[in-house]
Parts: sequence; structure tokens; C-alpha cells
Amino acid sequence: MTKPVITAYKWVPPFAQGLVRDTRARWAFEEVGIDYEVDVIDLPYAKSEAHRRFQPFGQIPTYSDGKVEIFESGAIVLHIASLAPGLLPDDPAGRARAVQWAIAALNSIEPFVQQLAVVDVFEADRDWSKARRPKVIEDLKGRLTDLEAALGDGEWLDGDGFTAGDLMMVSVLRALRNTGVLDGFPKLAAYIARGEARPAFKKAIADHMAVFAAAA
Amino acid sequence: MTKPVITAYKWVPPFAQGLVRDTRARWAFEEVGIDYEVDVIDLPYAKSEAHRRFQPFGQIPTYSDGKVEIFESGAIVLHIASLAPGLLPDDPAGRARAVQWAIAALNSIEPFVQQLAVVDVFEADRDWSKARRPKVIEDLKGRLTDLEAALGDGEWLDGDGFTAGDLMMVSVLRALRNTGVLDGFPKLAAYIARGEARPAFKKAIADHMAVFAAAA
Repeated sequence: MTKPVITAYKWVPPFAQGLVRDTRARWAFEEVGIDYEVDVIDLPYAKSEAHRRFQPFGQIPTYSDGKVEIFESGAIVLHIASLAPGLLPDDPAGRARAVQWAIAALNSIEPFVQQLAVVDVFEADRDWSKARRPKVIEDLKGRLTDLEAALGDGEWLDGDGFTAGDLMMVSVLRALRNTGVLDGFPKLAAYIARGEARPAFKKAIADHMAVFAAAA
Repeated sequence: MTKPVITAYKWVPPFAQGLVRDTRARWAFEEVGIDYEVDVIDLPYAKSEAHRRFQPFGQIPTYSDGKVEIFESGAIVLHIASLAPGLLPDDPAGRARAVQWAIAALNSIEPFVQQLAVVDVFEADRDWSKARRPKVIEDLKGRLTDLEAALGDGEWLDGDGFTAGDLMMVSVLRALRNTGVLDGFPKLAAYIARGEARPAFKKAIADHMAVFAAAA
């Protein structure tokens, strides 16, 4: 394979800076120590037919290494995790649990996190959003209560070892910054902080933010 | 490993029969030809602490084979797919694309499908649902338009071969039955019908429905 290339946005509004999904791929590369390049694209290009050939929904990131060419941040993280040690345990059972937590982040948590962003940001001006918000919060808190119970007093979701599942879960939960929702979940807040304290995360976010600084 | 056991619900309301997520695991087992058992549980037990030790969100399916013990239908399908040929291509690039489509189903399509169920079923009695519905439909149709373009005239999402990605995508799209939304997407409707015509799917659904018949 050649050096992997991912796509990232040249600029996004401040509320989204630090959260766009190329951060997940960048973090995974840093955790496993694989060098990568970034193809910076703008939003109109992301929506073009040319980009949609690689990402049907007109989004980022995409991943290409000359052999493997994929989209979906979850799939990209799992693929990067398969290339070198650091994000997936060696034993099949631990590996399956890491994939389980990555998919739990994407399918059992993120859709609820996303609805809060819909209400507070994307559809904040719609008549129904204010009325709907308490139910969105209630559903989200239900999921976070279950997740916090599963985490318990553990450092990471699966015992002591950080995996691709934690990378994805922390990435999803970070979107709740500034919402106040995490105030009621001190163990999850500490879990996110542990993720954000990892050198690989710090490097990934610095590189992600540098793109916006360069565009400004 | 011992014979795998999954959990399934003893009974669900008619609108959900045929769609509960144990269908995804059952279909995967049938595609790869692995025998399995079903531990039928009721909803109160699913919400119990005893079950939440295996499924933190109090849902089904869970999977256990004496070695691997996981939840999340997506992770279970990918795990079953890893046990025997039939759902994941041999080559790493094709394998990564199959995972990509499975995750696209779970993260880029299902959250939009789910919001229609929220509006039409789970929150149908809420004041905001009627006002919100056109936007939910618009967002969902946007995703389906992109997905139909990606499918093109192909039989399956990745060329000719049916993969775990198709299994998951067809499973997610089937929840749109009876909504009328698929009327505008003839290629997706035909794609779902191709999935439902597979002998493995038919066997899985028959076994799934038999549980409700036995409980009735």
C-alpha cells in the first residue's frame, strides 16, 4: 500500500471545529503510528459528483491507500486498527468486543447525540424544536445512564485496555461539549477527559485545527 | 466454541414483527451455514439488571458462543461473517468495503429511517411530530437518493457479490415497508426484494416469526 490519504474539510463553522469526523481517522492513525496525508477539500467539492464517487453522501472522511478505498469514519477507524497493533486486542473475543463498542458508539449512542444537535443547531429555528427538546434530552440521558453503568469504575469500556471502541465512543461523546448534558454523568465526563488526554488524540486534534487556522 | 446462542424477544407488537434485530443475526447465520440456538426472553427481562450485564441498553440480540460474548446487531453480524465464508470477501479491500457498507447502514441510513418511526409510531401522539414530519421525510429521501445513486444498476452495493454490507443495508431499509417512502426509489425497492428473496433470509424470517406464533 502507498501512504494513506484521507479527506478533510478546509473549513467548518467554529461550533464544529474539533468535532468533524476526520478527527476519528487522524486519532486512529496516531494511536497505531501510521503516517498519513490529508486531502483538504471544500464543502462544494464534497457535494460534487466527483467526490460522491468515493463518498455517496457527499461527506468526509474518505480513506485511500492505493489498495483499500473506503468511506464511513467507523469503517475507516476499524480498517486502520487492523493495519497495526494498538487499537484491537489480539484475542478474537477482545477484538469482537472492541468492534462491538465502536458500533455501539455509532448506532446506539450517536443517533441520540445527533438529535440534540438537530434540535439545538440544525433545526433550532424550526417551530417544533423547542417543544421536542425535553424528549430528546430524556432519550439521550437514558442512553448515557446505561453507558455510564456499563463503564462503571473502569478506565475504558473493556477493562484496562484502550481500543477502537473507546476511540469511537469518546469521539461521539465529545459532541456533547457545551451542552451541559454531561454534568449529570461525571464518570463519562472523566472517561472523555482520559481519551482527550492521550498524546495521539492531542496530536490528531492539533493537526485537524491547523487546517482551519491555515484557511483563516 | 460451543453452538452460538442469540437472544430474541418472545413477543413484539405486530408492526415490529419481522423487523426486530435478531433477524439480522439469524440471517447471517443462515448465509454462512452455522447452526445456532435462540434464548427467547420477554421485555421485562430484557430491561433487568441480569440482562443488562450482557446488553447495557436492555435490548436484543446478544451473542454468546462460550468464547465470544457481544451485543449490537452490527457487531454480531460482522462476527458471524468472520466465522465462515459467505458474507465477507477474501481480499482485504473487498472486506473493508463490506464493513463500510454495514456501517453506512447503521450510521448513515438507519438514524434517518429511525426518525420516521419516531414521528409515525413512537412519538406519533406528540404535538411536534406532525409539524416535523416533512423535514424528517426530506432528510430521509436525501439519504435514499444518495444510496440509490451509489447502488446504480448493480445487483448489490459492491458489484455482484452479496456481503454483510448488503445484509445490514437491506435489514435497515426493510423498516420502511408500509411507509410509502420507497415508492420513489424503485431501484432500492428492487434491491430490498432481492435480499428478501434469498433462501437464507426466508429461513431467518420464518424462524423469527415462529417465535411470536408460539407465544400467541
